[in-house]
Amino acid sequence: MAAAAAARILRLAPRRIQVPKTSPLAALSFPLPRTAPIAAASGRRQRFCAVAQAPAPAAAATGAAGEAVGEFRKRLRVADVKGGEDEGAAWVGKELAVRGWVRTCRAQRTITFVEVNDGSCLSNMQCVLTPETEGYDQIDSVTTGASVLVEGVVASSQGGKQKVELKVSKITVIGKSDPTSFPIQKKRASREFLRTVAHLRPRTNTFGAVARVRNTLAYATHKFFQDNGFVWVSSPIITASDCEGAGEQFYVTTLLSNSADGGSLLKDIPATKDGRVDWSQDFFCKPAFLTVSGQLNGETYASALSDIYTFGPTFRAENSNTSRHLAEFWMIEPELAFADLNDDMACATAYLQYVVKYILENCKEDMDFFNTWIEKGIIDRLNDVVEKNFVHLSYTDAVELLLGSKKEFEFPVKWGLDLQSEHERYITEVAFGGRPVIIRDYPKEIKAFYMRENDDGKTVAAMDLLVPRVSTYKLVNLLEEARGKSVLITLKPGWTSKI
Amino acid sequence: MAAAAAARILRLAPRRIQVPKTSPLAALSFPLPRTAPIAAASGRRQRFCAVAQAPAPAAAATGAAGEAVGEFRKRLRVADVKGGEDEGAAWVGKELAVRGWVRTCRAQRTITFVEVNDGSCLSNMQCVLTPETEGYDQIDSVTTGASVLVEGVVASSQGGKQKVELKVSKITVIGKSDPTSFPIQKKRASREFLRTVAHLRPRTNTFGAVARVRNTLAYATHKFFQDNGFVWVSSPIITASDCEGAGEQFYVTTLLSNSADGGSLLKDIPATKDGRVDWSQDFFCKPAFLTVSGQLNGETYASALSDIYTFGPTFRAENSNTSRHLAEFWMIEPELAFADLNDDMACATAYLQYVVKYILENCKEDMDFFNTWIEKGIIDRLNDVVEKNFVHLSYTDAVELLLGSKKEFEFPVKWGLDLQSEHERYITEVAFGGRPVIIRDYPKEIKAFYMRENDDGKTVAAMDLLVPRVSTYKLVNLLEEARGKSVLITLKPGWTSKI
Repeated sequence: MAAAAAARILRLAPRRIQVPKTSPLAALSFPLPRTAPIAAASGRRQRFCAVAQAPAPAAAATGAAGEAVGEFRKRLRVADVKGGEDEGAAWVGKELAVRGWVRTCRAQRTITFVEVNDGSCLSNMQCVLTPETEGYDQIDSVTTGASVLVEGVVASSQGGKQKVELKVSKITVIGKSDPTSFPIQKKRASREFLRTVAHLRPRTNTFGAVARVRNTLAYATHKFFQDNGFVWVSSPIITASDCEGAGEQFYVTTLLSNSADGGSLLKDIPATKDGRVDWSQDFFCKPAFLTVSGQLNGETYASALSDIYTFGPTFRAENSNTSRHLAEFWMIEPELAFADLNDDMACATAYLQYVVKYILENCKEDMDFFNTWIEKGIIDRLNDVVEKNFVHLSYTDAVELLLGSKKEFEFPVKWGLDLQSEHERYITEVAFGGRPVIIRDYPKEIKAFYMRENDDGKTVAAMDLLVPRVSTYKLVNLLEEARGKSVLITLKPGWTSKI
Repeated sequence: MAAAAAARILRLAPRRIQVPKTSPLAALSFPLPRTAPIAAASGRRQRFCAVAQAPAPAAAATGAAGEAVGEFRKRLRVADVKGGEDEGAAWVGKELAVRGWVRTCRAQRTITFVEVNDGSCLSNMQCVLTPETEGYDQIDSVTTGASVLVEGVVASSQGGKQKVELKVSKITVIGKSDPTSFPIQKKRASREFLRTVAHLRPRTNTFGAVARVRNTLAYATHKFFQDNGFVWVSSPIITASDCEGAGEQFYVTTLLSNSADGGSLLKDIPATKDGRVDWSQDFFCKPAFLTVSGQLNGETYASALSDIYTFGPTFRAENSNTSRHLAEFWMIEPELAFADLNDDMACATAYLQYVVKYILENCKEDMDFFNTWIEKGIIDRLNDVVEKNFVHLSYTDAVELLLGSKKEFEFPVKWGLDLQSEHERYITEVAFGGRPVIIRDYPKEIKAFYMRENDDGKTVAAMDLLVPRVSTYKLVNLLEEARGKSVLITLKPGWTSKI
């Protein structure tokens, strides 16, 4: 089945890939570049679901007991049509159906323009309706936020904003939206306001782009580690151990669940004779916490499977409202066996360059949007991450460099003290002209107890990867905000001690 | 960088894939089949790290401030050597290094056999030492559990168990293991015992295989949805809402963290005047819980991005010690927009067939191990899942079928009552001869409130996918046990209402 699907996609793709039929690769489904006009090449309409224009035959479905389940087909998305290099030109003359949500509706004398977005890309499909369009009598319901099915023929667009548009032969309003109360309108809304309508935020350009980029970053993360032979380990979320004293922990308990009206009564919490919480009556019969790191679990797997990575949610109960603190975030923790700090640095560098390159190539439209509206220059800076060699220098050399800079810093520079943001920014932005920098071999006093001590007896095999301006990236803050609680993907490669 | 890496791997692979240089595909790194003897084809030794035989030049690394970070290379693993169809024959005569952990050491008169496992596959590398081997004086330290670096030349093996072995020119003991106390020995250990040495369990055949298969299932899950245009959404883990009343919730709190010696004192818990827990003083200023489902969040994203899936940990505080209850497990929740129950069924079917086929093809050795040692016949049954058409029938037809079977069931069969395991087993195993069965259109009384009501006014558009014997699969139980708390990947496709 998967082989057949892969073969079908490959056959339809304009750039053919020769895969020997006997190759194990033939069994895998290649991710098609988002930009390939699948159905255009074949001239066949591909529809994933056909409910609106051809209702599911309910009688047939339930009439004969034991009918086979229908085929699952990749759905045709606006990105499939407009995402190619030709921006959809190859589709001109083809018939297709688009399902999505109305962004705007502009009525002119004889024609009406409806912008429909299906979330597959930032671009809308511009749909052109005339009074002859079937369903035109419903035009009053075609308002911002309404969900519609539009069917028609792709045509070259007169407007400068897009190469193609859809000449609509039929429009069906699937779900109406009250134009007087729907809160997401064309004008730009503040993020504070959008937080109050979080269930509709994903329909904005900004949050849609964030969701797509975050998805792509996550998948690229898996691809990178899987391609390099790492095994993903899902370390426990509820744990009885504090990993590294990395942060305050949340308690996980059912002792508080005896809610009376209005809230839990303190007297209902099980207690021991001396007035302490009686953990033996809790769910796990002892105190349990949300994990602050999967590192300890990861190390046990790395000491058996060689190279592993964790990628899951992590929790810190630190009540700090800064852009560097989150109560809940997804963290990546690779653990490499039989590796030293050089391998660790090489892995972190390769990973970061891989995922950044991946989003620049696969999320071009969304990144252009960020570059224009969220943070100017971010594409150039990310290109630097991909193209420039990362440098590494020891903490000791970094201190020398800072002392020799003659620059006045707010915080003191002295061997043994941790580096502050201003120091890190000087190193990456001034001393190395925008190149990412790894600082290694920190004094053991300022790093965690489990770091391997170097032969000098004073430093440990630890490293920090500094990316120019990353701590002030608005984009990072945005990624954090998108889900309310947790979004930032952090990288924290560990160093696995030899066993 | 990624493009260069991909090109290098492709060049070295024995089966060449023609990728036009200008294709966007060239920029992606193709997952090599685990079985390709990468370095064999080039005759070049590929080493990811070189620490043991060539210590990292510490002087060079720290001497010149600003040196470039070294290249990250895919590490050579035992699976790369022995995993191919020829079981390593192409490697005969090649020089290579293996790093791993000693499984057994058998000394004969003139030669010593050391089985080394690096976790990349079930197979060990059989290493043959003679008194001439460099490092042979350390042979007393080459005991079960020790970590070693072995260098040598691949040779055809005389033994029947493997095609190739390593004639060792040099052995280095990296980490010793006390043979009198190391708990994992060659003899089979009970899972109850292994639970007491959980940090070493991954070094057993069983838990290593489980970790690899689970990793592959997770990656295949991402591949399936990504290839079909779904966006991964990481819904919040800490939440203030109970999703669907799906199960008891865990409280997440910092109110209990004022620990005095010996445990939290009840009198330290902030209380309101009427003796209730004062949530306004908790971390989130109100009661917070671990999520029981990401569904509500998923639906808001599906109503903007069309097709999404969640894949993350989920929590249920149900104190039921059965194979169907877990306090923590990873759940997959796809949400399809503009879809009906037929699309949902097609998606679930395609997904399940894809991932099962994927592990049968990519985890052959581990699945053979399960088939032999854990559950005989599982490969045949999984092949059935891949090859047989799934069938669907309505709940109403299922009840008819059961009533017409003349079989005496323990639990009553009557329209309006939920189906029990014995009923489901009869349907899949007897009525449809081992084919997976989807039952759809359940009475609304026995399904959740948010299911779409069908036009008959009595049933809802819900479905359950029954896989023959899956509820009694020992393998499932094993997957659950592997991490102690949470392991089972469950599938629960949702039905997104039209907005």
